[in-house]
Amino acid sequence: MVLNMNTVIIGTGMTKFSKQPLVGLRDLVTEAVRECLADSGVTAAEVQMAVFGNAAEGVVHGQEMIRGEVALRYAGLRGVPILNVENACASSSTALNVACMAVESGSADVVLVVGAEHLSHPRKARSFAAIATSTDLDEDGSLGAAVTAELLGGLPSSSGLDRSPTMDRYADKARAYMERWGVTSRDLANVSVKNRRHASMNPLAQFQTPVSVEEVELSRLIVDPLRLLMCAPVGDGAAALLVCSEDFANKRRMPGARVLASKLTSNSAHPDARDLVRRAADAAYTAAGVSPSDIDVAEVHDACSAAELWLYEELGFCDSGAAVAMVERGDATLGGSTPVNTSGGLLGRGHPLGATGCAQVVELVDQLRGRAGMRQVDGARIALAQNAGGILDDGNEAVACVTILEKW
Amino acid sequence: MVLNMNTVIIGTGMTKFSKQPLVGLRDLVTEAVRECLADSGVTAAEVQMAVFGNAAEGVVHGQEMIRGEVALRYAGLRGVPILNVENACASSSTALNVACMAVESGSADVVLVVGAEHLSHPRKARSFAAIATSTDLDEDGSLGAAVTAELLGGLPSSSGLDRSPTMDRYADKARAYMERWGVTSRDLANVSVKNRRHASMNPLAQFQTPVSVEEVELSRLIVDPLRLLMCAPVGDGAAALLVCSEDFANKRRMPGARVLASKLTSNSAHPDARDLVRRAADAAYTAAGVSPSDIDVAEVHDACSAAELWLYEELGFCDSGAAVAMVERGDATLGGSTPVNTSGGLLGRGHPLGATGCAQVVELVDQLRGRAGMRQVDGARIALAQNAGGILDDGNEAVACVTILEKW
Repeated sequence: MVLNMNTVIIGTGMTKFSKQPLVGLRDLVTEAVRECLADSGVTAAEVQMAVFGNAAEGVVHGQEMIRGEVALRYAGLRGVPILNVENACASSSTALNVACMAVESGSADVVLVVGAEHLSHPRKARSFAAIATSTDLDEDGSLGAAVTAELLGGLPSSSGLDRSPTMDRYADKARAYMERWGVTSRDLANVSVKNRRHASMNPLAQFQTPVSVEEVELSRLIVDPLRLLMCAPVGDGAAALLVCSEDFANKRRMPGARVLASKLTSNSAHPDARDLVRRAADAAYTAAGVSPSDIDVAEVHDACSAAELWLYEELGFCDSGAAVAMVERGDATLGGSTPVNTSGGLLGRGHPLGATGCAQVVELVDQLRGRAGMRQVDGARIALAQNAGGILDDGNEAVACVTILEKW
Repeated sequence: MVLNMNTVIIGTGMTKFSKQPLVGLRDLVTEAVRECLADSGVTAAEVQMAVFGNAAEGVVHGQEMIRGEVALRYAGLRGVPILNVENACASSSTALNVACMAVESGSADVVLVVGAEHLSHPRKARSFAAIATSTDLDEDGSLGAAVTAELLGGLPSSSGLDRSPTMDRYADKARAYMERWGVTSRDLANVSVKNRRHASMNPLAQFQTPVSVEEVELSRLIVDPLRLLMCAPVGDGAAALLVCSEDFANKRRMPGARVLASKLTSNSAHPDARDLVRRAADAAYTAAGVSPSDIDVAEVHDACSAAELWLYEELGFCDSGAAVAMVERGDATLGGSTPVNTSGGLLGRGHPLGATGCAQVVELVDQLRGRAGMRQVDGARIALAQNAGGILDDGNEAVACVTILEKW
């Protein structure tokens, strides 16, 4: 096992997250990559490998197989390897994981990591069906037939999908969590309020306005207990990271963040493949040599507001059942002891599936470099990103990824 | 750069390649993985990571995003990372490339690499459209509209696709090659005859019977100058490799193959991103410290018979324009100086896109271990696999991968 990684992130770039039906994936990628290269002071010709994370371009727009080669075609890369990586909503955390292995193995000194997603489609059902492919379609008992029909063209227009089937699974898990710990709808709303407040300070966030508890609680019911403002929105965007060896970074004298750990766990029918986030977090803390109390700022996968609560517990930020109190005390708010989702999180910054993992890291690198503007966490030194993808087995993630970064 | 890799392949498994409309991707994967684990003497519980290469499961059957988690769900993995990798027809060579980085970086000692594809679909147009997503759909001027319609469900049934649009690009390149070097249709047929003869000795090959030059030349014209028996067939299959560190392999005392080099190049609009196979091969020869004349046996990407000819030249097996003579002399036939595609190649063994890269390596590992049966190349010590994926820019590959192996 690698205990001392020498992988450093010295540049970031990101588009605004929003619904951009009129641009294509390549437009988004070009913008994020250009900004990332400029930020790092590295030229496209110096890049030795690119790892491209995307989840839905195939379903939504038909482009499969060589998504990175197509999206990066005019980015100026000189014939270097382009690896296309997919892992549902954790696609670009997985891409970062591969980039770290590339650097640690000596295969490449300078790696461009891109997470990108263009989910917007004239038929909303298509976007929702795309998201639903992050489940096991063969075994999906509920909306599986509609999803398959939409995907494979069996129906001429909409197949009646008015939400992502994955949200049904999240709702099941949320109900069980609420019942167990006596959590109320207002508690869920408080998470949305916090993240939307953070998002209102992030110029790249999909939502630029804060919301009140009342607005959240009165928003449209998506699937009990989740209301519209408790669910991550559909949107488009791209984010990019310049990942390199410490030697290379030293030569450039660029500030950045060291990757202390990048750990992935994936679901399977094996009994040991449960509790994926906790397992990924434990592995990451061990590899990084830090504990949850060392984390100064975190980005977590709040696909719905309830998820953020149980994630605090799974990541060890608080004891089981103590997440609501953590939010009430303001611990997870900017200015608190462990600010979470200072970017606005999935709920506020937005969640273009394959772009999210990189976007989380963009926020954390900004925090560690002290350039997060109004959202700056004073003295941030250690940061954690948790990203999850897909749903298998009644609300369990298909894949979980935990990345720990240190100011460098 | 890693000059001395310590990555070793100690187990292989592979299904028969054929049209298997009634099985699913998971069935194929389960069979290949079970055989691979048994062959290596490694249990599923010992596997520390899986890298899953697939190209078309999303288009053909709707399953995207977490293809590996779904296909490997009952394989007995214990929550270890599953990385889904896509690179068109080079998807599982790319997966092997990632696995090598995992081992070389110390991220995992024991990695399962799987390449799998289930292309069969009741509508042939869907299979062909799937293959066509290995081009830049936005810029595909010929059959792009039909492909997109088929993919995105705009047409109720067949969209009139009767072949893969990528074959049109291969045909363009073949015509240019034939004109330049005075190559005849019979020369192309000779490659098919050689590979079908090899395939007839491979129980896992899609085609079990040899063909004559006349049969090839009289087979249906697909797109001039390519006839049916000069093109890789549509089919289904899976192949798996057990990749591990030399330390782990030493403990198991298993024979196998060392990976001397795994080099990838990807297309882009940059002028240096031309001639991808030659560049990948040069990088691989340099990293491995061998030259083309050291190669005892090779598997190359004969998507059409003409491609095999120019690949000899790009890989340095012969001078430019000398490939036809190489076939005529029997150099590339079993018993010749550099037997190529002893498995039968894409033309004979078959070409389930994402499975091909692993299948090539399965054949070469068998050769290096001296267990290739009737196809055994005496004393094989150094082997080369060349795999390509996608088409961009008038017949150039989107991605090329060259792997060099040594008996271990």
